[in-house]
Amino acid sequence: MKQYIEKNRERFLDELFSLLRIPSISSEEAHKPDMRRCAKRLTELLLEAGADKAAVYETTGHPVVYGEKLLDPKLPTVLVYGHYDVMPVDPLNLWVSPPFEPEIRDGAIYARGANDDKGQTFMHIKAFEYLVREKKLRHNIKFIFEGEEEMGSAALSKWIKTHKKLLACDIILVSDTTMLNEKIPSINCGMRGITYMEVTVTGPKKDLHSGHYGGAVYNPINTLCKMIDSLIDENGHITVKGFYDDVIELSRKDRRMLGRAPYDAKEFMDSLGVKALTGEKGYTTLERIGIRPCLDVNGIWGGYTGEGSKTVIPSQAHAKISMRLVPNQDSKTIARLFAKHFKAIAPKGVTVEVEERHGGDGFLIPISSKAYKAASKAMGEVYGIDPVPSRGGGSIAILAEMQRALKADPLLMGFGLERDFIHSPNESYLLDQLFKGMESIALFYKYF
Amino acid sequence: MKQYIEKNRERFLDELFSLLRIPSISSEEAHKPDMRRCAKRLTELLLEAGADKAAVYETTGHPVVYGEKLLDPKLPTVLVYGHYDVMPVDPLNLWVSPPFEPEIRDGAIYARGANDDKGQTFMHIKAFEYLVREKKLRHNIKFIFEGEEEMGSAALSKWIKTHKKLLACDIILVSDTTMLNEKIPSINCGMRGITYMEVTVTGPKKDLHSGHYGGAVYNPINTLCKMIDSLIDENGHITVKGFYDDVIELSRKDRRMLGRAPYDAKEFMDSLGVKALTGEKGYTTLERIGIRPCLDVNGIWGGYTGEGSKTVIPSQAHAKISMRLVPNQDSKTIARLFAKHFKAIAPKGVTVEVEERHGGDGFLIPISSKAYKAASKAMGEVYGIDPVPSRGGGSIAILAEMQRALKADPLLMGFGLERDFIHSPNESYLLDQLFKGMESIALFYKYF
Repeated sequence: MKQYIEKNRERFLDELFSLLRIPSISSEEAHKPDMRRCAKRLTELLLEAGADKAAVYETTGHPVVYGEKLLDPKLPTVLVYGHYDVMPVDPLNLWVSPPFEPEIRDGAIYARGANDDKGQTFMHIKAFEYLVREKKLRHNIKFIFEGEEEMGSAALSKWIKTHKKLLACDIILVSDTTMLNEKIPSINCGMRGITYMEVTVTGPKKDLHSGHYGGAVYNPINTLCKMIDSLIDENGHITVKGFYDDVIELSRKDRRMLGRAPYDAKEFMDSLGVKALTGEKGYTTLERIGIRPCLDVNGIWGGYTGEGSKTVIPSQAHAKISMRLVPNQDSKTIARLFAKHFKAIAPKGVTVEVEERHGGDGFLIPISSKAYKAASKAMGEVYGIDPVPSRGGGSIAILAEMQRALKADPLLMGFGLERDFIHSPNESYLLDQLFKGMESIALFYKYF
Repeated sequence: MKQYIEKNRERFLDELFSLLRIPSISSEEAHKPDMRRCAKRLTELLLEAGADKAAVYETTGHPVVYGEKLLDPKLPTVLVYGHYDVMPVDPLNLWVSPPFEPEIRDGAIYARGANDDKGQTFMHIKAFEYLVREKKLRHNIKFIFEGEEEMGSAALSKWIKTHKKLLACDIILVSDTTMLNEKIPSINCGMRGITYMEVTVTGPKKDLHSGHYGGAVYNPINTLCKMIDSLIDENGHITVKGFYDDVIELSRKDRRMLGRAPYDAKEFMDSLGVKALTGEKGYTTLERIGIRPCLDVNGIWGGYTGEGSKTVIPSQAHAKISMRLVPNQDSKTIARLFAKHFKAIAPKGVTVEVEERHGGDGFLIPISSKAYKAASKAMGEVYGIDPVPSRGGGSIAILAEMQRALKADPLLMGFGLERDFIHSPNESYLLDQLFKGMESIALFYKYF
């Protein structure tokens, strides 16, 4: 496919940029029309690439895009999953170029969604185009692109239940993850689940003057900090009662195999600009990210946060707290356990509200599967080195659901790199990864 | 003065409302012109009331207002202190009527500054007007009104040093505090100092995806929560090294005297809407507020705080943390101790910045002083019951400085009530307290 890319390079970038220019932030009400515009644009790209049909489908939330080219029911069917929604862009002042005005600098595209997941989704459309135009297509191909991945995939979750036949497939092919680094390709053979909660601690019914009350009342911020602090003990264990009940310890052999992934602590820390790491006692950094659950506060707010100083004891303090889960942990169960625990540890002087924001389970794909092997061969050919099996720390909750609903495994061929800073200011995607990704995907179809 | 109030009631309210309509929020740059407008309006009111001169004086920050009527150098001189700046008004949606459109409901004025401190300052102007017009004035009276009390009085602090002669006086008279309740008047015979800090905890140099890094890096929010939690131990003691070194324990006798102030735990908790109180072990609620130092987080923020859910490990987390100090604790020393301690407890995986936002010392006034006795007699006559000596939990840092610079004690005749919710939405001031305050002040001059 290399030559095809060379020939069409400028057009490819123009098309990708047309997607990146649409500010499809799914969690912000104001961008609802942009979501629809982005979905529409994807159907155009699918049809231009050679799909027999492609359309925007209504859901209970943001629309999904479905497209297909079916050759023969006897041939294997690949369902390509991707998402066209992106994360919010704050803090905006840290972006070197505006998030929705894509720009190429030093061999990389900079834009929100450049990688996650418009850039990676786009590779599949172009690999498909290549196969169609060069008459190399020997699979039935279906595409499903959703607009709520960054907010929990609630709409698609419902939609797949009523469209199982439409989506029926042998494998779910996904590019929405990272490789270890640009020299050493890797394939995720499992991902973590997630439970995302929002908590509110309420103390006095109104904001109070901290001079007149300070020292005698439960300050909701201090209290929230204490409660959060207590959620992880000195060994890095999560203290939520029953949290580890369903966690399956990996065998020595499995840990050894995953341990083959190259890891340089100094390089890792330098890339983050930190001088020390932390985590659960008894596990390596890659294990802490890949095969162990964890708990992070993703946002906290309360009291006076403006300029100057206000001497207030606020009535309320809030936090968004998420837990990454490992396969076999049930997201709903964890949400219930967390809510129960968080309420139980609240002192009598405050009231606590706990709400689940979204959740999803983790999943695994066997390394011995035909799909995994085809992907491994394809990437090995493009990168000149066999990919390492790895476990992704992130969560694509919907994939576990699709796996169950469609009885097909998700295969994660991700081409993102740590340096891409997805979800952060200055998200990027290396052109080299974009094009090698296309090549790898085209080859996958050859070997699958 | 009762009859004089009856006769002029409507005009008094019109004049006060003209002050309350000016959004003189000192900490917000956008309100700079309003600050000047408010200062100007005060000079008009002083001149109309009978001051020989009154003018706006430039400072390094917001201007101060100075006015005077000097009868005879042999007569005692009273310096009235007040402030015309107000607190920010957020959260705006909780106000029943707009904060800068004063409204009377159920016998109280509702507006930002209705009590703190425009309403209470206004009482002094009107008591002065009464004494002048009814030819009862037998003191030299000076007025100093500043525009930065709510942000630490930095400008006035410098200004008094070069205007000691202008401000020379025998007593500093202030109404900027509360009484125990509307039936039982009280006079503050001491106030707490304050040290207000802002801290920033920085972990990774950029925001990270919590799935790709969660479990292996120091999350600045979790870390900040842990650090904050550790600042107060299980006995309610502040753990900052050296924090209590200069705290003087009150004698049994003093504690007993202050313990005479009526206090009903249930009533107190009901007024706040809480089911339990907390604080330093070994002290009563009133002691925890009045004679003991404390530490409160006044604001906290970090990560994603918008709608929806963003799975981010933020690069930074922030908090505004203030400590109330007791007399003899030095605000600058405490700021230094806090900064040192906070940096010392930071784990290696984060960096910490600590900045002092403002500070001021506490102070005491002897109950045996002539001024205290005059105030006690005056309020006793108006309320029909002798006022209780109390210790204020709040801080008016500038008063400790003025006490030192002018060698005159501050006397706190405060007429605010807990129900006034100063610094909060729906700040109010009871008309009855406004007018009884004027009467008490007029009588103070009779007995001083």
